[in-house]
Amino acid sequence: MNINARGDPGRAVSRRFSAGIWMFGRFVDRFATDGYGPEVPMPDAIRAAATVEGLEAVDLNFPFWGPGASLSAVRAALDETGLRAQAITPEIYTRKFRLGAFTNPDPKVRQEAIDLVARATEVGQELGVEYMKIWPGQDGFDYPLQADPRQLWGLSIDGMQKVAEPHPGLPFAIEYKPKEPRTHMLFSSAARTLLAIEDIGLDNVGVLIDFGHSMYGGESPAASVELCLAKGRLIDIDLNDNFRSWDDDMTVGSVHVVETLEFLLSLKRAGWDKPWKLDQFPFREDPVQAARASIQMLSALLDLADRIDDERLAAARERQDALAAQALVFEELFGAVKMPR
Amino acid sequence: MNINARGDPGRAVSRRFSAGIWMFGRFVDRFATDGYGPEVPMPDAIRAAATVEGLEAVDLNFPFWGPGASLSAVRAALDETGLRAQAITPEIYTRKFRLGAFTNPDPKVRQEAIDLVARATEVGQELGVEYMKIWPGQDGFDYPLQADPRQLWGLSIDGMQKVAEPHPGLPFAIEYKPKEPRTHMLFSSAARTLLAIEDIGLDNVGVLIDFGHSMYGGESPAASVELCLAKGRLIDIDLNDNFRSWDDDMTVGSVHVVETLEFLLSLKRAGWDKPWKLDQFPFREDPVQAARASIQMLSALLDLADRIDDERLAAARERQDALAAQALVFEELFGAVKMPR
Amino acid sequence: MNINARGDPGRAVSRRFSAGIWMFGRFVDRFATDGYGPEVPMPDAIRAAATVEGLEAVDLNFPFWGPGASLSAVRAALDETGLRAQAITPEIYTRKFRLGAFTNPDPKVRQEAIDLVARATEVGQELGVEYMKIWPGQDGFDYPLQADPRQLWGLSIDGMQKVAEPHPGLPFAIEYKPKEPRTHMLFSSAARTLLAIEDIGLDNVGVLIDFGHSMYGGESPAASVELCLAKGRLIDIDLNDNFRSWDDDMTVGSVHVVETLEFLLSLKRAGWDKPWKLDQFPFREDPVQAARASIQMLSALLDLADRIDDERLAAARERQDALAAQALVFEELFGAVKMPR
Amino acid sequence: MNINARGDPGRAVSRRFSAGIWMFGRFVDRFATDGYGPEVPMPDAIRAAATVEGLEAVDLNFPFWGPGASLSAVRAALDETGLRAQAITPEIYTRKFRLGAFTNPDPKVRQEAIDLVARATEVGQELGVEYMKIWPGQDGFDYPLQADPRQLWGLSIDGMQKVAEPHPGLPFAIEYKPKEPRTHMLFSSAARTLLAIEDIGLDNVGVLIDFGHSMYGGESPAASVELCLAKGRLIDIDLNDNFRSWDDDMTVGSVHVVETLEFLLSLKRAGWDKPWKLDQFPFREDPVQAARASIQMLSALLDLADRIDDERLAAARERQDALAAQALVFEELFGAVKMPR
Repeated sequence: MNINARGDPGRAVSRRFSAGIWMFGRFVDRFATDGYGPEVPMPDAIRAAATVEGLEAVDLNFPFWGPGASLSAVRAALDETGLRAQAITPEIYTRKFRLGAFTNPDPKVRQEAIDLVARATEVGQELGVEYMKIWPGQDGFDYPLQADPRQLWGLSIDGMQKVAEPHPGLPFAIEYKPKEPRTHMLFSSAARTLLAIEDIGLDNVGVLIDFGHSMYGGESPAASVELCLAKGRLIDIDLNDNFRSWDDDMTVGSVHVVETLEFLLSLKRAGWDKPWKLDQFPFREDPVQAARASIQMLSALLDLADRIDDERLAAARERQDALAAQALVFEELFGAVKMPR
Repeated sequence: MNINARGDPGRAVSRRFSAGIWMFGRFVDRFATDGYGPEVPMPDAIRAAATVEGLEAVDLNFPFWGPGASLSAVRAALDETGLRAQAITPEIYTRKFRLGAFTNPDPKVRQEAIDLVARATEVGQELGVEYMKIWPGQDGFDYPLQADPRQLWGLSIDGMQKVAEPHPGLPFAIEYKPKEPRTHMLFSSAARTLLAIEDIGLDNVGVLIDFGHSMYGGESPAASVELCLAKGRLIDIDLNDNFRSWDDDMTVGSVHVVETLEFLLSLKRAGWDKPWKLDQFPFREDPVQAARASIQMLSALLDLADRIDDERLAAARERQDALAAQALVFEELFGAVKMPR
Repeated sequence: MNINARGDPGRAVSRRFSAGIWMFGRFVDRFATDGYGPEVPMPDAIRAAATVEGLEAVDLNFPFWGPGASLSAVRAALDETGLRAQAITPEIYTRKFRLGAFTNPDPKVRQEAIDLVARATEVGQELGVEYMKIWPGQDGFDYPLQADPRQLWGLSIDGMQKVAEPHPGLPFAIEYKPKEPRTHMLFSSAARTLLAIEDIGLDNVGVLIDFGHSMYGGESPAASVELCLAKGRLIDIDLNDNFRSWDDDMTVGSVHVVETLEFLLSLKRAGWDKPWKLDQFPFREDPVQAARASIQMLSALLDLADRIDDERLAAARERQDALAAQALVFEELFGAVKMPR
Repeated sequence: MNINARGDPGRAVSRRFSAGIWMFGRFVDRFATDGYGPEVPMPDAIRAAATVEGLEAVDLNFPFWGPGASLSAVRAALDETGLRAQAITPEIYTRKFRLGAFTNPDPKVRQEAIDLVARATEVGQELGVEYMKIWPGQDGFDYPLQADPRQLWGLSIDGMQKVAEPHPGLPFAIEYKPKEPRTHMLFSSAARTLLAIEDIGLDNVGVLIDFGHSMYGGESPAASVELCLAKGRLIDIDLNDNFRSWDDDMTVGSVHVVETLEFLLSLKRAGWDKPWKLDQFPFREDPVQAARASIQMLSALLDLADRIDDERLAAARERQDALAAQALVFEELFGAVKMPR
């Protein structure tokens, strides 16, 4: 199985979109412990998502949240709205897993994590998801000296093998992140995750690159796309933005227009044919409006990407000519204004 | 009123300790939305705090949280344990205030924030607190272009005046913080807060320096102590630690032994005679043990501070001789090992 | 004297540009100690600057660098090219001042710094500069415990008084910066510098905001503009860009299009009527091309700023409506694309 | 060949030390372009290094710098002082290579880089070095859009193959670094470098972990040690310290005592038997004193490491018990003070 999500290089990229369903749910943080809004059961979140023009699929947390969020209720909401379940994200980062899911020091909790992913996978297969998204958010450590890095690494490999091996036909995408909620997370970068995937040794395990995670991890997100593609392990991407020091999960392009475009250009070159997936936390915005803002920004940037002369860009980059490469983009962006070449 | 909390320079600093009561409560974040532990009503948190040797006072959120957390229940817990209410922190950062407390665009919400602080102040006076702690955690902005900085500044000044002016005999300490939960907070640094205090124009408004906020704001916490002291506006300090990019609220000295010591040395020179106050979020640790670890680290560092030859340190710093100044500390820390001079 | 550089609010902002002359000189760093290019005497750098369309003035280091860079040779190059000397930047950050200029532990070196600024001021007056730019790049400290913050503060105040007091009719702009070449600089933020200016107590001392310094210091550059304007102390601004963790001194808008625009909008509202000043280090680019790229980006952004409906933007910001405020900008930027409102 | 530098696990670690010779040379930066001190020819730097008690070996830049720094003069200085040449670092980051060494867009410059490393290797073999250190400091990019990450990656692999393949018996250690002098470097992290080493496909290529690079790259240096050891690719380490946002190259332990100790503990467990190597830039300190300070800190920390009860530490880490693991260390550090367990 080639889990790389690239299509035919050169073919038109999609103008389709998807989103993590949590974006339409309720947000809590350690200060506003009463939540940034009222509870939203997942079926209602799905209905809200469906009002966003262009959105065709959702990534669903499991267990489904909110009163009445049974599998049949979720399925009904999907059917009713026409949205597709693109992925399932098992919640292996709640209270039970606060000291770790796959890396929990207690083997019983590790087993519970594996069991939860197993149940989520079953549900995912019933819903026909493209892939399982694995984000072991509590796996890592907080304090210097707290944990033995070799043990954490070994337990992570072991956990991923146990969840992915039984389903060789289903991709499992590891979403890496440098920190939060741990001060140091185990799958912290694209490269560390690729090394772990080698140790996992299964064809159906790959990477999900969250643009924001990559940014505040100090990576060039476009370079991480290329690295994962080169290793044949890029399953999906998540889009959002931040201020480069934390996972602010803001609307796409709200801070980093240029690097978002560069990220899209790398995916376009690979013939990316999946929906463009949003992962945001609009704590204080209307989530439907926040999704629209991201989709329209993405549409604008994809149009811009189409207008850029690929050959001239390739020539400028071949020379590593920063001003020329940037000028090609800014001339398209600002129209009449001629940038120096 | 001189709100500067310094005592007689040169006199022995205290070995007394206090803590924010939230440290003994329940933690939630955006991922473990079911909380890192069971709910803890505030009176029970007070009882837990009282088991920490050396702890004499607490900083209490208001409204008091948890079932049965009435004023009389809180007072009973304080009386029973002998703990003192050192400060009150009004919770002007919950759902209602998600778009801001003093800077909320809606004047009705701004008034609610002022009213909440007024009620909290009344309770604080009944409990005999030393000062009111004001942390307008939702005041600021998230996105470029979102807010007019002049308006936010004016509204912040206005709000602080409205809460502090009616109580000229009671200090109001503004706790500054660079970010979280907003990506950009209004009272973001020691210096910005001191400028705002000038505009507020009241003698009873000063600063609370949280060591960790100062660290991840790129300040030298010791230099911020000196700046606030020089302006006569240092009301209190909070102690914790982090990795310099986020408010990790870890145990004292767990990462930054040297800079914590430097911070204590600046306070010692000023004759600091308040309890040393802890502000931590031990998400995954036992809070009583986490408080003990911080207190024992502080005790060790205060002992170390007492052993350092003030005159030789002053002489090294007069020459700005980094190696000599550090050697004085490390020789004391490591005993026999002689550092180069 | 009102040193605030604002003009009549509402009048059209300038389309004039200036630059630090070092941008056209030779760059060195700690690795490429043989320099990123051959030596360029300052008169030749002036001639190179003059080839940049739209550039009308330069900020000159003093002492002038390179063989044959006498005052008469520099003046001849200015006359020949029609460029104006906008400011002088005394080089109080070379080897002699490596332990500090105004804060050097050696009083003789402090006096040398003051004398150098005095000589530079004399030259500046002969050349008719608008202001003196003071960047005490070596003033601060590197190691925890190295220096007494009170002493550094006092020496900085003293030094600034000594250089600015003799010239009450000439503005002295302090350029703040968080770090580099020291790990902690004395004038590290807009707010700290404004507090220091209060202590300096002279009408002719103000602030120069370098956009990049503000960014990697964690400020909102637009908010720092408003703060300095409100205090009547904004003398000038420098433009460039970086990745928010270091002073990369890249071309304007190459990374942060949105925040650069926001910065310009704050200055536009104040009726900014000075040339827009570039401060870049194009280590590996042709400096003339790098200046052109920045000027064209600035022209494009100023045009964009003119097209934005001020009233609608003000209304969105009054509501602190991030999506609406951003939509106003992105609709103008991307033309046909409609963003959600 | 097993290039992993580990010895017999459990045996006593060395108390031997080495240093990069640049530490005793002359520093320049972009502001103090006249240098932080007078020029020091390499033979004199070697003699200065030899005055540092405990230093037994040096890492030498090539070409040797300063007047009269011929191979015979360098060899004479080594012989005279008894210092050993531990490694050679070819200077593939000077003016000629400002657009890249292995990744330079010009194939002729790429060849010059390869030729320079070849000559350096010849000299290294004559001097009997343990390994060649390869730091392609100019390989990477500065601007978004500037370069094609795939091309940079390919060129880096190719360059490393060309320099290392002819010498199968000599280890080549790649020193990774996140940024500086480029804003984004190609070998930016331990994990990316390990992935590149797989593509290089040679047994004699491994990693040098610079503690400071790892810190400001957001890694846990101890975890990077374990990762490189697990892959059999750890050739050497460099020691220094910084403030976690830049390569400040300060004395060892001056900021991060705890994480330095954790780093040493990981190496101790692996039976590290190489000299502990210093890489510092004491811009404003006496380099001999700065080296002594680092060596005495390291000696103190290694003594501390020996006093820690390995089994109790392993047990605490097995439980991932942060407070217990830290207490074991802090009790040893602070002696009498009992930390909570």
